[in-house]
Amino acid sequence: MSSKVIKGGTIVTADLSYPADVKIEDGVIVEIGKDLSGDEVLDATGCYVMPGGIDPHTHLEMPFMGTYSTDDFESGTRAGLAGGTTMVVDFCLPNPNQSLLEALQMWDNKTAKASADYSFHMAITWWGEQIFDEMAEVVDRGITSFKHFMAYKGSLMVDDDEMFSSFQRCADLGALPLVHAENGDVVAQMTAKLLAEGNNGPEGHAYSRPPEVEGEATNRAIMIADMAGVPLYVVHVSCEQSHEAIRRARAKGMRVFGEPLIQHLVLDESEYFNPDWDYAARRVMSPPFRNKLHQDSLWSGLASGSLQVVATDHCAFTTEQKRNGIGNFAKIPNGTGGLEDRMPLLWTKGVKTGRLTPNEFVAVTSTNIAKILNCYPKKGAILVGADADIVVWDPKRKKTISAKSQQSIIDYNVFEGFEVEGLPRYVLTRGDVAIVEDKVDAKPGHGQFVAREPKGAVNRALSTWKEITAPRKVQRSGIPATGV
Amino acid sequence: MSSKVIKGGTIVTADLSYPADVKIEDGVIVEIGKDLSGDEVLDATGCYVMPGGIDPHTHLEMPFMGTYSTDDFESGTRAGLAGGTTMVVDFCLPNPNQSLLEALQMWDNKTAKASADYSFHMAITWWGEQIFDEMAEVVDRGITSFKHFMAYKGSLMVDDDEMFSSFQRCADLGALPLVHAENGDVVAQMTAKLLAEGNNGPEGHAYSRPPEVEGEATNRAIMIADMAGVPLYVVHVSCEQSHEAIRRARAKGMRVFGEPLIQHLVLDESEYFNPDWDYAARRVMSPPFRNKLHQDSLWSGLASGSLQVVATDHCAFTTEQKRNGIGNFAKIPNGTGGLEDRMPLLWTKGVKTGRLTPNEFVAVTSTNIAKILNCYPKKGAILVGADADIVVWDPKRKKTISAKSQQSIIDYNVFEGFEVEGLPRYVLTRGDVAIVEDKVDAKPGHGQFVAREPKGAVNRALSTWKEITAPRKVQRSGIPATGV
Amino acid sequence: MSSKVIKGGTIVTADLSYPADVKIEDGVIVEIGKDLSGDEVLDATGCYVMPGGIDPHTHLEMPFMGTYSTDDFESGTRAGLAGGTTMVVDFCLPNPNQSLLEALQMWDNKTAKASADYSFHMAITWWGEQIFDEMAEVVDRGITSFKHFMAYKGSLMVDDDEMFSSFQRCADLGALPLVHAENGDVVAQMTAKLLAEGNNGPEGHAYSRPPEVEGEATNRAIMIADMAGVPLYVVHVSCEQSHEAIRRARAKGMRVFGEPLIQHLVLDESEYFNPDWDYAARRVMSPPFRNKLHQDSLWSGLASGSLQVVATDHCAFTTEQKRNGIGNFAKIPNGTGGLEDRMPLLWTKGVKTGRLTPNEFVAVTSTNIAKILNCYPKKGAILVGADADIVVWDPKRKKTISAKSQQSIIDYNVFEGFEVEGLPRYVLTRGDVAIVEDKVDAKPGHGQFVAREPKGAVNRALSTWKEITAPRKVQRSGIPATGV
Amino acid sequence: MSSKVIKGGTIVTADLSYPADVKIEDGVIVEIGKDLSGDEVLDATGCYVMPGGIDPHTHLEMPFMGTYSTDDFESGTRAGLAGGTTMVVDFCLPNPNQSLLEALQMWDNKTAKASADYSFHMAITWWGEQIFDEMAEVVDRGITSFKHFMAYKGSLMVDDDEMFSSFQRCADLGALPLVHAENGDVVAQMTAKLLAEGNNGPEGHAYSRPPEVEGEATNRAIMIADMAGVPLYVVHVSCEQSHEAIRRARAKGMRVFGEPLIQHLVLDESEYFNPDWDYAARRVMSPPFRNKLHQDSLWSGLASGSLQVVATDHCAFTTEQKRNGIGNFAKIPNGTGGLEDRMPLLWTKGVKTGRLTPNEFVAVTSTNIAKILNCYPKKGAILVGADADIVVWDPKRKKTISAKSQQSIIDYNVFEGFEVEGLPRYVLTRGDVAIVEDKVDAKPGHGQFVAREPKGAVNRALSTWKEITAPRKVQRSGIPATGV
Ligand SMILES: [Zn+2]
Ligand SMILES: [Zn+2]
Ligand SMILES: [Zn+2]
Ligand SMILES: [Zn+2]
Ligand SMILES: [Zn+2]
Ligand SMILES: [Zn+2]
Ligand SMILES: [Zn+2]
Ligand SMILES: [Zn+2]
Repeated sequence: MSSKVIKGGTIVTADLSYPADVKIEDGVIVEIGKDLSGDEVLDATGCYVMPGGIDPHTHLEMPFMGTYSTDDFESGTRAGLAGGTTMVVDFCLPNPNQSLLEALQMWDNKTAKASADYSFHMAITWWGEQIFDEMAEVVDRGITSFKHFMAYKGSLMVDDDEMFSSFQRCADLGALPLVHAENGDVVAQMTAKLLAEGNNGPEGHAYSRPPEVEGEATNRAIMIADMAGVPLYVVHVSCEQSHEAIRRARAKGMRVFGEPLIQHLVLDESEYFNPDWDYAARRVMSPPFRNKLHQDSLWSGLASGSLQVVATDHCAFTTEQKRNGIGNFAKIPNGTGGLEDRMPLLWTKGVKTGRLTPNEFVAVTSTNIAKILNCYPKKGAILVGADADIVVWDPKRKKTISAKSQQSIIDYNVFEGFEVEGLPRYVLTRGDVAIVEDKVDAKPGHGQFVAREPKGAVNRALSTWKEITAPRKVQRSGIPATGV
Repeated sequence: MSSKVIKGGTIVTADLSYPADVKIEDGVIVEIGKDLSGDEVLDATGCYVMPGGIDPHTHLEMPFMGTYSTDDFESGTRAGLAGGTTMVVDFCLPNPNQSLLEALQMWDNKTAKASADYSFHMAITWWGEQIFDEMAEVVDRGITSFKHFMAYKGSLMVDDDEMFSSFQRCADLGALPLVHAENGDVVAQMTAKLLAEGNNGPEGHAYSRPPEVEGEATNRAIMIADMAGVPLYVVHVSCEQSHEAIRRARAKGMRVFGEPLIQHLVLDESEYFNPDWDYAARRVMSPPFRNKLHQDSLWSGLASGSLQVVATDHCAFTTEQKRNGIGNFAKIPNGTGGLEDRMPLLWTKGVKTGRLTPNEFVAVTSTNIAKILNCYPKKGAILVGADADIVVWDPKRKKTISAKSQQSIIDYNVFEGFEVEGLPRYVLTRGDVAIVEDKVDAKPGHGQFVAREPKGAVNRALSTWKEITAPRKVQRSGIPATGV
Repeated sequence: MSSKVIKGGTIVTADLSYPADVKIEDGVIVEIGKDLSGDEVLDATGCYVMPGGIDPHTHLEMPFMGTYSTDDFESGTRAGLAGGTTMVVDFCLPNPNQSLLEALQMWDNKTAKASADYSFHMAITWWGEQIFDEMAEVVDRGITSFKHFMAYKGSLMVDDDEMFSSFQRCADLGALPLVHAENGDVVAQMTAKLLAEGNNGPEGHAYSRPPEVEGEATNRAIMIADMAGVPLYVVHVSCEQSHEAIRRARAKGMRVFGEPLIQHLVLDESEYFNPDWDYAARRVMSPPFRNKLHQDSLWSGLASGSLQVVATDHCAFTTEQKRNGIGNFAKIPNGTGGLEDRMPLLWTKGVKTGRLTPNEFVAVTSTNIAKILNCYPKKGAILVGADADIVVWDPKRKKTISAKSQQSIIDYNVFEGFEVEGLPRYVLTRGDVAIVEDKVDAKPGHGQFVAREPKGAVNRALSTWKEITAPRKVQRSGIPATGV
Repeated sequence: MSSKVIKGGTIVTADLSYPADVKIEDGVIVEIGKDLSGDEVLDATGCYVMPGGIDPHTHLEMPFMGTYSTDDFESGTRAGLAGGTTMVVDFCLPNPNQSLLEALQMWDNKTAKASADYSFHMAITWWGEQIFDEMAEVVDRGITSFKHFMAYKGSLMVDDDEMFSSFQRCADLGALPLVHAENGDVVAQMTAKLLAEGNNGPEGHAYSRPPEVEGEATNRAIMIADMAGVPLYVVHVSCEQSHEAIRRARAKGMRVFGEPLIQHLVLDESEYFNPDWDYAARRVMSPPFRNKLHQDSLWSGLASGSLQVVATDHCAFTTEQKRNGIGNFAKIPNGTGGLEDRMPLLWTKGVKTGRLTPNEFVAVTSTNIAKILNCYPKKGAILVGADADIVVWDPKRKKTISAKSQQSIIDYNVFEGFEVEGLPRYVLTRGDVAIVEDKVDAKPGHGQFVAREPKGAVNRALSTWKEITAPRKVQRSGIPATGV
């Protein structure tokens, strides 16, 4: 059996930084130490050897109005690898009344050409006894996180009643509920009002879902999770209002996690005011970009631990697809890219500025989500026994981000022109070298599904606490006692 | 024309305290000053002469499961007068699909025997074009506040979509939306769960609607009002979570008012743990009583102005009616009394302890709500031209609260045994002396409807601000400009 | 005796707006009503008749490094009148070891040419038995508010020990402590560091005292007041940090007031980055101007009542005087003007935009501070018996603010070029017409000292509450009981 | 060389839990894996194998009024080992004007009989050029944390000026400042006042330093650290006020750590109201115990990561020594014990209830502080190469805490009677088995000093950020430009 050694680098994990070599066999780390040798040597001199990134929020080949988001598991995982991301977690989205298992089959079919490992979150888009039952089966298949859309009224959205039912079921199964937190009723009405007033450009999308609308939904989801006795993960936290709700919950000991996107960390609302319709429309996503105050809030959250994960919500539509919404912003497909750019941008804007330590970088791009999703230390770790999903990070390598040179197959990049310093020298997926600097050697079909166990430590602890503090019946000596 | 003079007292208003006499003719204050004389003299020596109390939250003769809350406008307004309250605002509750105007007629019919003045809030219990249209007519009739129930699923509850529609309509009409803020979906599910677990006693009622459930709904209503561009009034704020949401909104300049009840200020959750079922059931109301932490929060809010009004939610059911819920707390009619006790209790627990100044006492029992509901200074003022709704308050008079001696016609009092110091010597309703210490001389039929104007100063200011900050369409040179 | 009538206007008070005429005799309001007549008629058609403004924070003819702030009681009160302000409260600043009474005499001497009424705050700049004793005498003379500087190390600054002593004394006397809240130790060190680094321009002044430094001191003063059991008034609240500390205190029921300045509401930190040294230096004051986030916070505080008063800290130094600090920002005399501009600017930026109602405008420019300083309703009111300090406000009058046309005798105006809409038509000081539109007829010597009573309602209430909740000694049966 | 293997247990780290054996040679972990063998086998069946506890806050043999705290490094480290704690960090306290190096020598002398490893924090108790210079030497000796007392006026206390100087020096050296946060001026005055009123019992100690006094100082230290550009560690965070200040700082991205004590987590203020003087006096420490609200806050902070470390402030005085304060609580020596009880109590009240996961338990008792103090992974880790400071934790072992059976040589235990479930089966200090269940085999003299490196990742990141955001001088074209 052939072995590889990553030599001469500094291992950087979520915990600590130290110089050591890493030896790999059969896709797994077999030794960490000084002066290791192996059949093949990857030179990491001057580099950081870090766990490959995990992007827990992608929509590859996502169905939309009869077409699909353009990046699929082939181009998407390749783009991820090019930027140091070695695993994605995609969302399986059943249609109303569709079986979860049937949907899962459809999603599974899309992954044949994945060149990096992947897992799924299952969306709960409707409710009924069938869903209740199938959730257990989904968990058995290693999918232990369930997404809930509080927006997209008329399609994906569930109401509080359905959310509470599903959250309770998650509590029982030891699974983790996720929410897209925006008040869908209000968004729908504000959208209609804006369109009626002639406010139909891409900026209208941003106007239709201000920070208060997101903060409200986050707050509501937190309460429902608290009542159901289950942890909660809030995807794409974009604003102080939502972050504040999360901090407030955590200050009470509630188990709530928050995920900002790289887009919200570095882009702001002024993007929508660009006089070029295409420029603005390409940046339409939900939640929309916010202002600097919100960006500062998100960065602080990553440093202080009230937010834990940086993701992308990669859901790439071409300009052609975006133009579907000319004259009506509500018809612009929601989504941007970022899989290739997340890690270099976060390093450049976060680590180089001192907003984050290198260890915190690893935590928020990889390790934290591996723990939250209960696939640590198989993923997210540089430890003996862990999958050799590794990025050898060269802090001196630079480039200017451009659609021309990207792996994503869409025709633009919302980070066009950003200069980044800090890029992969090598990226390994289960020991295979997929990236050598600019050379991309992703292998379609190499990617495997990552099954995850339910009932992680946080779920178990919370269940114990909720049981101990559960309401107790008052013993009465006669009912009623008075005057009877 | 005969005149009355209240002599020798100290006038206490929301603004200031000063010694002066008050002269009354034709039900109206005609002079304030030193050494006034008139046909009849009421001796106010040693007393405070204050605006009569206004209780903006009562449910007199409210229909419930084929019967009615026991105190009607006759006994209710009499109880109010006995405690210094000279005006009530009751809730008109249309049935689903019922015309607002028809419901108003029904409620108007109940008031024939009112012995003090009254007004109405109109509840929005369903939505449609008819409601949209009738709201304007209701406003024309002097009813400018609209109540929304976020709880009571299956009967009074409206959803976010309906609330947003109604709030927008309020914004247009210059009216004030009110909310009962509890998440009805979650309450319903938690109720079902508790009952299924055998937790069917009155304490289950409290368990089914913890503070987080109220805080969430308050937060949501605030966001919806902000998006609709209208002020908001939150009834029966019972807990820190709800108060915190209000403070957070106010810290952003939002126009939100909060109303704690005298019950939540002085009673706590331990009441539900009483081994006597009747004792506990009589205290069932929504929101339920909370613990000391929440009480402290409410008191602080009154002192600092983040909460503005103390009400009662007087909705009195007899023990007999309460027993409807034996074996199922969800069937215990919700409501307690308080009309007679609000002012003496608030004085005793608030002013005598130094938590509130006498001026703040007047503000929160009378003047603030008169301003919020836009009937100031006809009501809530000791000013020339104001209605002579006056309480001459003797800070030395004491009593022990007891059902035996109360005006309410129910068979118990949730404040039984509380000692109060500070009671009315005289209470005047539009110049008529209805109360002389323990002597009650309320005159059924004396009470009149108080019509109110829409578009108060706060509504107008907020509309201006929302207009100035409204989303602006981006001018584009060609759509799309890029590559076309 | 001659009478005046203000006819045809709308009276606007902190409470309400209503059309009525106002009749004045002997400097006092004698009648309010419809169709009044008198010897002289002032036409208020289309105007608001409001209480004259009170500026509770001025430094007229303040000693500074051997010279004095340029505007004295003559030009200062005239400027005030020109802008609708009919009373100022100035700070008496004893030297270290100087008697309070001696300092008071010096300050009293400055007021001979005041053309509007005035009062004083007394500063506590050192501590000792003499100060302790003299405070009582100062209160007896009608000065019931004591200022404490937490900055200006080496001159005015007092430490926590001195503050606590003085605050306790205030509690006993029923007086109100005021604080200039910036951490003087930190400011001094940061100033030294900036200068050492060559950062000696006016912008260095702002760098040396960031919002955190102010917020800290505010928080500290609040704690000390809470421990001493006395209300607190924080002057020139300029930032969210300080405002947040105040809100946090108020949320706990503490009695804390906050005063933003008109400068901080409308000017921001970018002023210091002007390439013209003079331009920047003229704007040097403490605290310095902040950014938009802080401005929004202050505006919200005024609307929601967590901040109560808008002042100016008028302390006008000429460009010549400002140039004392060329090469060393620490030597630029601190202070700007604003007496003439406060009310027109606040109306324009506050009322016309809908951020404040007209009633709130009156509250924050006049009535609230009159209540806080316990000279209401002599001042701050349109009530029979109140001093006829009245501004007849024409909401249609416009001007562009300019040093060329101002009353202040300094050579610039920090609001130069601001367009205001809303200006006085008439200003009356105790019944004398001092201003008729652009015509200024201030009468030096007309102004009188306003004495104030201690032990206002808030002081009394707080003392009661602190007494009730005071620590109680534990009764022990033997000391020690164990093993003895 | 002889080897040991811990067999059959589940390794629990701050990160994860997994079954594995641990092999130890020469005091260091040499292998982790399945089915390891060695010369000696320690059976860990049914147990958790965790990093030994680190108590970063002890005062062993601390000088006090001519005597010393009774537990010294001999009994103190033995007590620690008995409870699973394998390292302590003690405070070196120079006298005023004493050289840091001289004090260090004195403290070093005390450690001869330590049976577990130890490190030091150096206290800054005065300021001057000598201190400035010696701090570098102290850092060179491996002591990279500097303690500042904001209380104990007249002895240990430093003022803001001194703190800012020292914090800046820490920033330069890459060291970490610590604070004891209570406002010493206010405590001193309140103490004098209480004593003057006859409130001289132990409860007076608690009355003299309420939560607001601690919160204020915490807030102030945070501001000073922020201005100095250095992280901050707040020792013995006992209350919501202090915790809130920390959370607020962290929400802004400031680098602040907080350390609650096991005492404050499980004991409350009612302890001081015990009628037995001795009972109450034994519990006198600073800050004093608080109420349940504060306890809940601390627990939540540990779960959410806003507080990172649980310590003891072990400073044990005998009843005899405590009685020094009969008649004057200010003379009761401050301090309680806890070294032996910290981990069993935290497990029982934290992990068994579900408030913390087992991993969080490890984090807050060991790993987090090792990282913060920059001695990870030598300490605080179960990793190859780490010191074999290991506790084999038996979650089924129970005992009742009692002074009779404790290692501490004082005559009482503040946790007397608490039942704990979860106790060490084995405790190893650098591979030596010091504890086998109830059998204690600590070896005086075995303990070694742990030197630590400055400039940890967080210090470096913060310095970078502060540099990037440092004030920039404005370029001016002429000074002044105007009119010159
Ligand atoms: Zn989404
Ligand atoms: Zn998504
Ligand atoms: Zn209700
Ligand atoms: Zn009600
Ligand atoms: Zn000042
Ligand atoms: Zn000033
Ligand atoms: Zn300490
Ligand atoms: Zn200590």
